[in-house]
Amino acid sequence: MAPKKILMIILDGLADRPVADLGNKTPLQVAERPNLNWFAENGMCGLMDPIAPGIRPGSDTSHLAILGYDPHKVYTGRGPFEAAGVGLSLEPGDVAFRCNFGTIDQEGLVRDRRAGRIREGTSEIASDLDGLAIEGADITFKEGTEHRAVLILRGKGLSPKVTDVDPHKVGVRYLKCQPLEPEASKTADIVNEFVEKSRKILENHDVNKKRLENGDLPANIIMPRGAGVYPHIQSLEEKFGLRSAVVGGVTLVKGICKVAGMDTIDVPGATGGLDTDMIAKGQAAIRALESYDLVFLNVKAGDICGHDGDADGKVKVVQRLDQMMSIIRKEIPDDVVMAVTSDHTTPVSIRDHTGDPVPLMIYGKDIRVDDVTSYDEMAVAKGSLGRIRGSDLMPILINLSNRAEKFGA
Amino acid sequence: MAPKKILMIILDGLADRPVADLGNKTPLQVAERPNLNWFAENGMCGLMDPIAPGIRPGSDTSHLAILGYDPHKVYTGRGPFEAAGVGLSLEPGDVAFRCNFGTIDQEGLVRDRRAGRIREGTSEIASDLDGLAIEGADITFKEGTEHRAVLILRGKGLSPKVTDVDPHKVGVRYLKCQPLEPEASKTADIVNEFVEKSRKILENHDVNKKRLENGDLPANIIMPRGAGVYPHIQSLEEKFGLRSAVVGGVTLVKGICKVAGMDTIDVPGATGGLDTDMIAKGQAAIRALESYDLVFLNVKAGDICGHDGDADGKVKVVQRLDQMMSIIRKEIPDDVVMAVTSDHTTPVSIRDHTGDPVPLMIYGKDIRVDDVTSYDEMAVAKGSLGRIRGSDLMPILINLSNRAEKFGA
Repeated sequence: MAPKKILMIILDGLADRPVADLGNKTPLQVAERPNLNWFAENGMCGLMDPIAPGIRPGSDTSHLAILGYDPHKVYTGRGPFEAAGVGLSLEPGDVAFRCNFGTIDQEGLVRDRRAGRIREGTSEIASDLDGLAIEGADITFKEGTEHRAVLILRGKGLSPKVTDVDPHKVGVRYLKCQPLEPEASKTADIVNEFVEKSRKILENHDVNKKRLENGDLPANIIMPRGAGVYPHIQSLEEKFGLRSAVVGGVTLVKGICKVAGMDTIDVPGATGGLDTDMIAKGQAAIRALESYDLVFLNVKAGDICGHDGDADGKVKVVQRLDQMMSIIRKEIPDDVVMAVTSDHTTPVSIRDHTGDPVPLMIYGKDIRVDDVTSYDEMAVAKGSLGRIRGSDLMPILINLSNRAEKFGA
Repeated sequence: MAPKKILMIILDGLADRPVADLGNKTPLQVAERPNLNWFAENGMCGLMDPIAPGIRPGSDTSHLAILGYDPHKVYTGRGPFEAAGVGLSLEPGDVAFRCNFGTIDQEGLVRDRRAGRIREGTSEIASDLDGLAIEGADITFKEGTEHRAVLILRGKGLSPKVTDVDPHKVGVRYLKCQPLEPEASKTADIVNEFVEKSRKILENHDVNKKRLENGDLPANIIMPRGAGVYPHIQSLEEKFGLRSAVVGGVTLVKGICKVAGMDTIDVPGATGGLDTDMIAKGQAAIRALESYDLVFLNVKAGDICGHDGDADGKVKVVQRLDQMMSIIRKEIPDDVVMAVTSDHTTPVSIRDHTGDPVPLMIYGKDIRVDDVTSYDEMAVAKGSLGRIRGSDLMPILINLSNRAEKFGA
């Protein structure tokens, strides 16, 4: 039996809890979604705990689990995956941070953790901060998508055991980076010096002058977080024999995929934002199946609406995603096994990730179709996949694509 | 509360995927099976991943898991379990191989890996190969059921780290045994010498002359595989306090049960083949419950049809198994907890084991009966057992038979 190809679609943060304004239904339940439902009707469904029941996943840990890795073993902080995603290579000993361009007021209180979701000018700012002279480490700084950036420290005796500068909420002061062990105090000092030196550069930066003129929030602080060192993980090719690629997506997701040895396929119009061209991403994924064994497609839009608490926006995102699924329904080759799921639940009522399980649907020829006919959080719970963990998904797809090695005889 | 007895019935390889020729239903779904369904209606159902979701089990690793062992810890290759199954005792240092009687052509290409499913004459051939003089090891060779046999090497400095002689497919040359580490080259040499010396003995063997006269394929090669050393595992009596027995079954299954400390009950007419007397096996299992705490019954026939790609044959096997279940339905004592499941899925479309989960049904007095009324791959997914792993089955049965030790106070 010839091995099949695998298409994995992550509807990022799309799963939700019942929303009062939507009649106590989830955005998925109220949205028109004929194509997602068609796949549910013709596939098998279930619930998936990205990490384990009740565990609240980050985007990074959940993506690692869904790709078949044990995040408890390979996850060393968000920074290194962000770094990989913007094309920066780490060396052993380097410490990497995920950063936000943020907005603080004159007292240092955080007004917006994303500087008004800044999109333009970040590369000009980044080039002025890259290579900043600080004693004890070489500084690399590069922008990611939207308000995201990466800071890498390279030097002797650095440690990732330091706290975040980003306070993770608004209306409070940005934090001093602190060492979590005595050996890390040098690293914390370097981070704090970077934050203060960059504040001075940002204060009168042309990009910010222009933003203020346009009534936009200035990017007047860089807030590092998620310190980590280079993760050593087996590629998907070594682990499962899969040549694989990721289509579009945000920096962090691309970074994880890159560390897993996947090629990156950039799609014009794929922004990682709400305005992303989902149709183009779906078409690119189908095309990529010609050259790869595994194609991984992440669409971030649902998660953004979850973080913004925007229920109506999330309903509209589901409907746009459903149009993407109509392209895939028309064009998916016969020899493909497809999974559609989310990396975590991002309820609009919570505005952040929660540990609720996410819907999972698997479609392909010859699989055991169950009688679930609706793709939503409640309906899939009655499906034949039962309740699995994120780390089970890859083995299940490897099996259904007839690629599994026999354990025993 | 008095402890109950346990009856574990393994419908070997019976689970399947939807078959196009059966209207996209599985053999289980289309077969008449009033008794299996009666048990489903009066028991509780679920899905079981013999090892873990998506993991493709061998018969050996899955049986170990179902009996409550961790195959990742105790599995050392198939040979030792086959050896135990034919009544050979291993000593520490011995290396055991599962072998096939096979048929090769004059160029050494494998024509049939099972010598036309040879059944008669294997003991005569085996007695001529047993004790074959080869420098460096004492040779023990004994036939198993049908085309199966066991080779044991006893001597100093032997290693199980060698490759298979059996190429596992037809139309290709049989393989030279190769060492996987330098210390194993002596063992590989001995295996290759055994294969060549036995070829000469088989060439003009009376059994083969007779087979050729009858138009049967000759057994003109012995193909060793699955090298392993003696596994150290706790018996079921030590582990769970169960006096236990296995009824009939093929060599490998009996071997695993023997290593687990179970008695073997031989049943006249139980061949391990398609023509096995299932009624006799069912009756023997019921009788054995008088003397044992756990009775283990494996019926291989469904797996054979799966490997042969024979959907209609598999449907007929289900119907014969259902007649066996009618005997058990009539005669099962009140104080017995019974599980009916498979050790793995063997889809007729794949002709080999896959990692799809298998149906599980548990029946007995006082258990929580759910509303599943059909014993098949899809229906059981809605049962109250949910989706469990093979290694969970034994603890569940130990609990339902009121034999579990309390963990804590």
